[in-house]
Amino acid sequence: ERKQQSLTYSNRGMTLEEDINVTNQYYLDNEIAVIHKKPTPIQIVNVDYPRRSAAVIKEAYFKQSSTTDYNGIYNGKYIDFEAKETKNNTSFPLQNFHEHQITHMKNVKNQGGICFVILSAFSSYYLLEAEHLFTFWNRQASGGRKSITKNEIDDFAHIIPTSYQARIDYLKIIDKLYF
Amino acid sequence: ERKQQSLTYSNRGMTLEEDINVTNQYYLDNEIAVIHKKPTPIQIVNVDYPRRSAAVIKEAYFKQSSTTDYNGIYNGKYIDFEAKETKNNTSFPLQNFHEHQITHMKNVKNQGGICFVILSAFSSYYLLEAEHLFTFWNRQASGGRKSITKNEIDDFAHIIPTSYQARIDYLKIIDKLYF
Ligand SMILES: [Mg+2]
Ligand SMILES: [Mg+2]
Repeated sequence: ERKQQSLTYSNRGMTLEEDINVTNQYYLDNEIAVIHKKPTPIQIVNVDYPRRSAAVIKEAYFKQSSTTDYNGIYNGKYIDFEAKETKNNTSFPLQNFHEHQITHMKNVKNQGGICFVILSAFSSYYLLEAEHLFTFWNRQASGGRKSITKNEIDDFAHIIPTSYQARIDYLKIIDKLYF
Repeated sequence: ERKQQSLTYSNRGMTLEEDINVTNQYYLDNEIAVIHKKPTPIQIVNVDYPRRSAAVIKEAYFKQSSTTDYNGIYNGKYIDFEAKETKNNTSFPLQNFHEHQITHMKNVKNQGGICFVILSAFSSYYLLEAEHLFTFWNRQASGGRKSITKNEIDDFAHIIPTSYQARIDYLKIIDKLYF
């Protein structure tokens, strides 16, 4: 049962990730932007080097990333974001984010980068700028609610348009906000 | 013997990589720049989910990256680079680079990013801007030599200053060239 849970969880994650990857590939193929997902960080413990064939990793563990999952460049600007989803109907739980990701986003903002999160929630995709995430994060840190309400997301986030090729066309929102 | 070779090769690679990682950590700690090494891309084939403990990757393979190893943001500018080394005394072999890395670097330049390679060679660290690497790459593609001579590196690359904390202080060169 534990096994099934893990598989279900990672499959659920894959749809959002795959849709973003397809979008990024579309951006790349059309010379719109160069944005990639970073590989999952792995701690490799044991590698086998068989003769005449490729090295086989025999023991490794998932590590927590010290950054967000996606970054790259769009029209001269540094782009950095994390993608998260919830099945919750009324709010977006902040437990989806980790302190080190927030720290990374603050570092990026301090260097003048464009930083945001893509939220999959309430049957839509939203782009929420990092500044607003920081506000909700700080509210939680000072004893406030542990989630962003749907109303708050409606107020502060931007619904991302979708299309066949640019499945989650987040640069449309970036165009409006920064160009 | 094959095993020993692989280990030696990767250890050799680690020194340059570690020195760059320490430099990037110095930049991060001092709010100078946010530049990270991307994790090594891995194709995961088999994962074990034992009860009550962390998932163990039991079979996985190294994949070729479709980008360079390092990227991030410095002072509002997108930074992207690859690090390579040679023990060769007279030239830097171009076989250290892969076509897809060159393609990635061209895409980054087209978006207005700062792109270069850090070369460890001839007992020095050099920063060579991507534009110059493209020239030597094109020369090879049209039947020319398969390496960059030491003289050419002296002419076109910049020796990177080293210090205790910023072991390979490549942003000093970026300051001179772009700011
Ligand atoms: Mg993630
Ligand atoms: Mg490399």
